[in-house]
Amino acid sequence: MNTMVRSASRAADALRPVRITRHYTMHAEGSVLIEFGNTKVLCTASVEEKVPPHKRGSGEGWVTAEYGMLPRATHSRSDREAARGKQTGRTQEIQRLIGRSLRAVFDLKKLGERTIQLDCDVIQADGGTRTAAITGAFVAAQDAVNGLLAAGKITETPITAAVAAISVGIVDGRPLLDLEYTEDSACDTDMNVVMTGAGHFVEVQGTAEGVAFTRAEMDQLLTLAEKGVGELMLLQQQALSK
Amino acid sequence: MNTMVRSASRAADALRPVRITRHYTMHAEGSVLIEFGNTKVLCTASVEEKVPPHKRGSGEGWVTAEYGMLPRATHSRSDREAARGKQTGRTQEIQRLIGRSLRAVFDLKKLGERTIQLDCDVIQADGGTRTAAITGAFVAAQDAVNGLLAAGKITETPITAAVAAISVGIVDGRPLLDLEYTEDSACDTDMNVVMTGAGHFVEVQGTAEGVAFTRAEMDQLLTLAEKGVGELMLLQQQALSK
Amino acid sequence: MNTMVRSASRAADALRPVRITRHYTMHAEGSVLIEFGNTKVLCTASVEEKVPPHKRGSGEGWVTAEYGMLPRATHSRSDREAARGKQTGRTQEIQRLIGRSLRAVFDLKKLGERTIQLDCDVIQADGGTRTAAITGAFVAAQDAVNGLLAAGKITETPITAAVAAISVGIVDGRPLLDLEYTEDSACDTDMNVVMTGAGHFVEVQGTAEGVAFTRAEMDQLLTLAEKGVGELMLLQQQALSK
Amino acid sequence: MNTMVRSASRAADALRPVRITRHYTMHAEGSVLIEFGNTKVLCTASVEEKVPPHKRGSGEGWVTAEYGMLPRATHSRSDREAARGKQTGRTQEIQRLIGRSLRAVFDLKKLGERTIQLDCDVIQADGGTRTAAITGAFVAAQDAVNGLLAAGKITETPITAAVAAISVGIVDGRPLLDLEYTEDSACDTDMNVVMTGAGHFVEVQGTAEGVAFTRAEMDQLLTLAEKGVGELMLLQQQALSK
Amino acid sequence: MNTMVRSASRAADALRPVRITRHYTMHAEGSVLIEFGNTKVLCTASVEEKVPPHKRGSGEGWVTAEYGMLPRATHSRSDREAARGKQTGRTQEIQRLIGRSLRAVFDLKKLGERTIQLDCDVIQADGGTRTAAITGAFVAAQDAVNGLLAAGKITETPITAAVAAISVGIVDGRPLLDLEYTEDSACDTDMNVVMTGAGHFVEVQGTAEGVAFTRAEMDQLLTLAEKGVGELMLLQQQALSK
Amino acid sequence: MNTMVRSASRAADALRPVRITRHYTMHAEGSVLIEFGNTKVLCTASVEEKVPPHKRGSGEGWVTAEYGMLPRATHSRSDREAARGKQTGRTQEIQRLIGRSLRAVFDLKKLGERTIQLDCDVIQADGGTRTAAITGAFVAAQDAVNGLLAAGKITETPITAAVAAISVGIVDGRPLLDLEYTEDSACDTDMNVVMTGAGHFVEVQGTAEGVAFTRAEMDQLLTLAEKGVGELMLLQQQALSK
Repeated sequence: MNTMVRSASRAADALRPVRITRHYTMHAEGSVLIEFGNTKVLCTASVEEKVPPHKRGSGEGWVTAEYGMLPRATHSRSDREAARGKQTGRTQEIQRLIGRSLRAVFDLKKLGERTIQLDCDVIQADGGTRTAAITGAFVAAQDAVNGLLAAGKITETPITAAVAAISVGIVDGRPLLDLEYTEDSACDTDMNVVMTGAGHFVEVQGTAEGVAFTRAEMDQLLTLAEKGVGELMLLQQQALSK
Repeated sequence: MNTMVRSASRAADALRPVRITRHYTMHAEGSVLIEFGNTKVLCTASVEEKVPPHKRGSGEGWVTAEYGMLPRATHSRSDREAARGKQTGRTQEIQRLIGRSLRAVFDLKKLGERTIQLDCDVIQADGGTRTAAITGAFVAAQDAVNGLLAAGKITETPITAAVAAISVGIVDGRPLLDLEYTEDSACDTDMNVVMTGAGHFVEVQGTAEGVAFTRAEMDQLLTLAEKGVGELMLLQQQALSK
Repeated sequence: MNTMVRSASRAADALRPVRITRHYTMHAEGSVLIEFGNTKVLCTASVEEKVPPHKRGSGEGWVTAEYGMLPRATHSRSDREAARGKQTGRTQEIQRLIGRSLRAVFDLKKLGERTIQLDCDVIQADGGTRTAAITGAFVAAQDAVNGLLAAGKITETPITAAVAAISVGIVDGRPLLDLEYTEDSACDTDMNVVMTGAGHFVEVQGTAEGVAFTRAEMDQLLTLAEKGVGELMLLQQQALSK
Repeated sequence: MNTMVRSASRAADALRPVRITRHYTMHAEGSVLIEFGNTKVLCTASVEEKVPPHKRGSGEGWVTAEYGMLPRATHSRSDREAARGKQTGRTQEIQRLIGRSLRAVFDLKKLGERTIQLDCDVIQADGGTRTAAITGAFVAAQDAVNGLLAAGKITETPITAAVAAISVGIVDGRPLLDLEYTEDSACDTDMNVVMTGAGHFVEVQGTAEGVAFTRAEMDQLLTLAEKGVGELMLLQQQALSK
Repeated sequence: MNTMVRSASRAADALRPVRITRHYTMHAEGSVLIEFGNTKVLCTASVEEKVPPHKRGSGEGWVTAEYGMLPRATHSRSDREAARGKQTGRTQEIQRLIGRSLRAVFDLKKLGERTIQLDCDVIQADGGTRTAAITGAFVAAQDAVNGLLAAGKITETPITAAVAAISVGIVDGRPLLDLEYTEDSACDTDMNVVMTGAGHFVEVQGTAEGVAFTRAEMDQLLTLAEKGVGELMLLQQQALSK
Repeated sequence: MNTMVRSASRAADALRPVRITRHYTMHAEGSVLIEFGNTKVLCTASVEEKVPPHKRGSGEGWVTAEYGMLPRATHSRSDREAARGKQTGRTQEIQRLIGRSLRAVFDLKKLGERTIQLDCDVIQADGGTRTAAITGAFVAAQDAVNGLLAAGKITETPITAAVAAISVGIVDGRPLLDLEYTEDSACDTDMNVVMTGAGHFVEVQGTAEGVAFTRAEMDQLLTLAEKGVGELMLLQQQALSK
């Protein structure tokens, strides 16, 4: 519809400015504000000394996630899910994705019978909230695990690798990394890619919003995503080393 | 965990026996029972001469889907969602996927201000219910569209291409086409691929259930899926030509 | 309103063709597709080795039922109860009736502390779904009980008698057996009668939809129902002896 | 279980003392407290100048009912349905019965496009709450209709006959009229009978709680019910003539 | 809006006629109908030999309240909360207030691990339902406690003081005690005051519905409330001494 | 329980450090982060060009509020209300209070038929979230109104006065201003006071959590609150003049 010009003359294969702020709030075992440009997501990790029913007595822990958006995180106000009395299908889809992504890098046996609950709440949305959430939740989870190690509750880290995520898409025939909201709305194909530190895939979710995409386009998008996730992992490490 | 032997000495790249029965029930504008081996899904298409609020006055129609599973479609009984009072996240995720997949091959303008509602209900489950649902729903939708054309309500088909879906996965290091339930449970990577008649992708949803997957594995899986979807489209055409 | 002619020149006191197919699906302990003409109901019996709270520690079992209708089982599509988030009053009324009817022929002590859960799902509706459900659920329950006996989990059958049900009604002043949908819509009085193998009544539910009915009409309807239920019980026995 | 002695040496075919108090509360168009012995139900009729969607533009009105029980109307406290967030199946079954029973004596065309909403709230329960509710609701509805006539909103009564209801049952082999709670709990068969002023049946709902009942027993119960309803109708007339 | 004339030439500082009827229904451990003029609230106290999770094993009991309004307690019918599927914010606010007010005069240790559940149901509303509910609930609670003492289940009363409540407000610039509905609707400031027998405050909830109120007005209202609550406590004692 | 020492040697009549940050997020018409010490609440004001049903066609606008708390805003994680499917009574009570407080300083006629929706979401909680929310929501509402004036949608401000709120309480017999969480938990009396710029009261909500409070104590608390609200209003003005 619009001829898209990426904001701030950003290159097609460039991430938006990413900022990761640890210890953003004071109560949670891990608390990270992650910003992908104007997208801001608060990711907290809470450690609870209990597990859901399907894990009781298993000697294993659990990692799970919930996702929410403040009503006015978006351009026009959306209904508050708590007031409507249920989460939308979109919300459930995203929080299930975040949970699976984080569990992919956790050895639940080493976590012991406790739960790490990740809460990802979008303060301001401008595209890419789910990928920011996964990337930030990893940092919050790492802080929570470090706390468990420091307290002697576990002796070995249950984290087997880093995990991060980025969106890629085809807009006006051009593959782009890390879509902003206006790009996301205009794109033909939208793909969210979750990868581990070893460069392997945890989730690939590609959707043709307009025209279906070819195998060649898919290859281009995966290459772009590999680049983006690699950069995000460096930023995670920098944040964690502070 | 188990050493998987595919049932009936099925080859790694072979579909299960697929059966598509049109006019399975008598009231719906399209009614298809689709079977992928022991998986049986009833797909009905209902035409309603109204559209949801976001399409009112737009001159465009709508295509949407709902998915359900009979409580004892599965090995052990699952709760009836109507009695629990809400659909699970899994159900919502699947019905959103079916709806997007079908909309990808519809020109909503040509449909006019009416809705095609697809209901996909699993009578018996043995893996691959969502891919069977998409494949069967397309046939039901085609029957409903043919009815509209025959009745002179539309003069041109709003369907732009066929759509079908298949699951692929890696079990014990081996890429397999069209996973049965036991294979699905044992697999490291599970991917659902939705494609059009032109051989393009509508949705690719790959998930590492165990070990993350490499780019090479992803390529193998996509090739396998292309083969499977091609075969399904022939079966759709055969069913529709009867 | 319409002058009703029964389909296929059926006599006023004749059942529609009844078909009872056992082992219709593969997972349930009992699985029966029952057809009363165009009405098709899938009845499954699931055995669960637990009881609801009010029976815990009692040494007694429980038998209960749930009922559902696929959205397009009917002439025009009805809302999916799982999506609406609650069961209608009609659904609850029917499933309570099925549950009471089956419990009437069960000795819960002999069942032991386990539950037989009956799920009756209407695949296609053309009147009489609740009576078909009760009649089919009995066959499914018998199969489940036979499985428990064969497995040595119980040594004596908890089933004390057969149970079956039929609808009767007065249409245009004429008492009719086994109402089809068009008859049901046109009738002044509609009565559902549930009886045991001993020829006794478990439930009699008569409702004047139009004109109230006289005692003499009630007598005629009960006689008609006795005839119909007798025939259904023969069909149940034939199905079970295969 | 217990050898039942009817309270106050009541005969097997005798009603409990019945009291009908009109104008019990001040806001409703009809407001009746009806007492069957210790059972006390407040029945209000509210006239609303609108109809539900399925009657809009039809020129016809609607009559409907809701039923509730105060949490401590019963021997031990039951959960408040408003706090639980849904009505039980029993509540829905009863309110549907009350609605159907009242509609059976209403000519909805003569009512015009307005609704009479009947609210039946049990203040104290001792068996027979639904039959008391129907009997009292008729008096409240009559008061509401009289108000409409007096105000000139309608010129002809839409009420075609009186309606009342009573329970009958077999306790220790003995047919009893108007069961109290202890009798209801002990009975083998429980039947609720709704009749019009012309002596015809609107609803007959018989349930075998223990042993199934014979045709002869059914005949005895219907005769008993005819007697009871006849007496209730005299009491309704007396109350209305005050 | 209207020039208010208090009904029955009631003085500005006079309560409406108050009537407290104990043993109003037969099942509850305490059952009180309290009337403030035309406002009628049934308050029952139920003793349950269990406590909510947060008190289990504490040796302490719990006192809690629920509030409801019959649909036609009001001038025009309000929706039945049980049918809507949730309690309004107003209902929850009121029942939380009643619960806190009663707990303020209970020594939960002396109650032992049991719950007194107070149900306050408005039969007829004409302003002041929450204050009538608190005042009546105290009498019901006292009856329930007396029953526990008489049965030897507790040896010492857990009640530390009486509690009662009244509304006060400013209408047309004039401070009034015990507002009726028409006064409540017209008032600028509405205040509910809950006090103990010692003359101390448990709750003060003042709301400016129109013009904000001054400190001087607040003082006048509190003085008026002190007078009203004092009179209510005499009436409670009289009722309890019968 | 604990001997309370106020953090940072704060005086009994001193506010915590208050910070008001405007334009905190980018989409809302008013967006304010307000901090009372460690309590941080994001207050957004959204202007919607529609009104709820009860205001349609009235020529008047509406001002309303919703309140939420991020799951890990608190010391231990609380359930996400959207996932639980309903808002707690506490949440509803608070959002009703915020809405009433803001409406008290709005002339709804001058607002025109549009709605200002205030969303107050607690990012971090340490006592006093509702008073911070009211104080911050006023600033956000002012920004939204300024936007309407600037856009020429209204020509005269509908805001009639400032509004702000503070909590006061008695801890260990000592009246304290602006309670932190540890003080709030330990206090005998907790009072929230909402006032206008004219020094009048909009809401006074005092609750005895432990011992009931005397009239003299109430006077002390009100005096303390007047001081605190006066200071908050200066801070609001400073923030708005930037």
